[in-house]
Amino acid sequence: MTHHAKPRPFTLEELTAYLVDVFPQIWSRGDYSIDDVGPMSATVRLAYHPDHLRPGGTISGPAMFTLSDLALYVAILHELGRVKLAVTTSLTINFLRKPEPRDLIGRAKLIKLGKRLAVGEVALFSEGSDEMAAHATGTYSIPAKGDEGA
Amino acid sequence: MTHHAKPRPFTLEELTAYLVDVFPQIWSRGDYSIDDVGPMSATVRLAYHPDHLRPGGTISGPAMFTLSDLALYVAILHELGRVKLAVTTSLTINFLRKPEPRDLIGRAKLIKLGKRLAVGEVALFSEGSDEMAAHATGTYSIPAKGDEGA
Amino acid sequence: MTHHAKPRPFTLEELTAYLVDVFPQIWSRGDYSIDDVGPMSATVRLAYHPDHLRPGGTISGPAMFTLSDLALYVAILHELGRVKLAVTTSLTINFLRKPEPRDLIGRAKLIKLGKRLAVGEVALFSEGSDEMAAHATGTYSIPAKGDEGA
Amino acid sequence: MTHHAKPRPFTLEELTAYLVDVFPQIWSRGDYSIDDVGPMSATVRLAYHPDHLRPGGTISGPAMFTLSDLALYVAILHELGRVKLAVTTSLTINFLRKPEPRDLIGRAKLIKLGKRLAVGEVALFSEGSDEMAAHATGTYSIPAKGDEGA
Repeated sequence: MTHHAKPRPFTLEELTAYLVDVFPQIWSRGDYSIDDVGPMSATVRLAYHPDHLRPGGTISGPAMFTLSDLALYVAILHELGRVKLAVTTSLTINFLRKPEPRDLIGRAKLIKLGKRLAVGEVALFSEGSDEMAAHATGTYSIPAKGDEGA
Repeated sequence: MTHHAKPRPFTLEELTAYLVDVFPQIWSRGDYSIDDVGPMSATVRLAYHPDHLRPGGTISGPAMFTLSDLALYVAILHELGRVKLAVTTSLTINFLRKPEPRDLIGRAKLIKLGKRLAVGEVALFSEGSDEMAAHATGTYSIPAKGDEGA
Repeated sequence: MTHHAKPRPFTLEELTAYLVDVFPQIWSRGDYSIDDVGPMSATVRLAYHPDHLRPGGTISGPAMFTLSDLALYVAILHELGRVKLAVTTSLTINFLRKPEPRDLIGRAKLIKLGKRLAVGEVALFSEGSDEMAAHATGTYSIPAKGDEGA
Repeated sequence: MTHHAKPRPFTLEELTAYLVDVFPQIWSRGDYSIDDVGPMSATVRLAYHPDHLRPGGTISGPAMFTLSDLALYVAILHELGRVKLAVTTSLTINFLRKPEPRDLIGRAKLIKLGKRLAVGEVALFSEGSDEMAAHATGTYSIPAKGDEGA
């Protein structure tokens, strides 16, 4: 694959600053943060906070959906640069085990990065656990060149 | 199907009060409300609010995921009564069109209500629009009798 | 929606003849046949045959997958004409009840028909039953104009 | 995880013989064969054969669906023994690249093996390729003890 030969368009700090700028509702609160990015991959963290809880003390399904979507979005952004209009076209999530009342880590891996479509999967783990809490697969529409953000 | 012969366990007001009691984080804010319930079905509304917006002025994917999950959950609750431990096991959502900056309506329909597993689909529409904004399918694990909430 | 104003590109007979010509492995055996097509919709039938059975006498999952995919494909083809390179990009199927040892009917409905992407859902029923045996959602990539079949 | 401490219920030969016995329609033709099984995993092969082809020379979507389902089924069977009524409850497949006209390999990995529900994912590769052709996630209902095959 030749995607990885090119220079990365972003450092981790630039990536975070860009996301805070473009999606302030999500990224300026500090709940979500980027742990790491790599070729075709990204790791995003959801800080533990009682507001994400359902009865029984686990992190909510919507919070897990959001973490999955963000981790895939960051992996795509890191590969493609400022594609601010990239759009989630579908997401399938399987909830496997109740997450612990700890930070939740989403490890995203892109399995296809085409001209029009990106597909990736995400494994969610409670920090320090090696049992997957949830697994998601997402598809993203890549805007054509002319539509990219400035 | 014989599900519908039995008396409904809840009025709309009781259902809402129960949800506010059990999931206060979601239901006490007033963003989500139940428009209607019926046999194997429920309609839930997400009030328009700028916080759900992405750049470009549309309601966020996570907000649409949440609306889908809640609409299915309400439809199951209405059929089964206080099954407070019913758990989402999977959800697949297809994002079809940008929702308008208006209330978003989720119309859930159960397509299976077994002893252990419920399956349903949800169509999301911006209020006043007849073009589907998103479509979701969800599966739910039904707890055994002994585990039901009081 | 303006899709429906234009003349249909195919009669039912032309559609079937085209499919037999382009996908002889599937359509020339006579297992699958088109019951009906309409605006943004198609109904495809899988004739009952013991080869589709699993132990216990039900039609196999792969046969139900195939029926779902074909019904959506026919609905797209009927709308767009000879787009012979339209490609399934994803399919999610929920198996709800054991189908009966009878013909299985797939009713497909397109919920989005964009320039690049079509999305639809399919409900599968055993002939004469009103309980859904399976439900599927599929996404299809639409080739650009220049790539269309002759 | 304690699943792996127990002795495996099957050798590879016993597993294949059992499948040929129980699902002769699929396993006696020789198209599908088990390459390997391991803890929570299985690798199943679809032999290249022109009948699986679509126009353009690629293996059909239904054949890829079947391979995904079989690989997950074998992984579950290998863990649980003769659970002949284990039932696919859902499968989501993303088609990523046209497979080559060569054998197609499905590598299944279980990500949850509960008492009632198993969940796994499968990566499909053309033999000799390191680019994923398709990715699937499947869920399976595990029958209660009393319903297990003899």
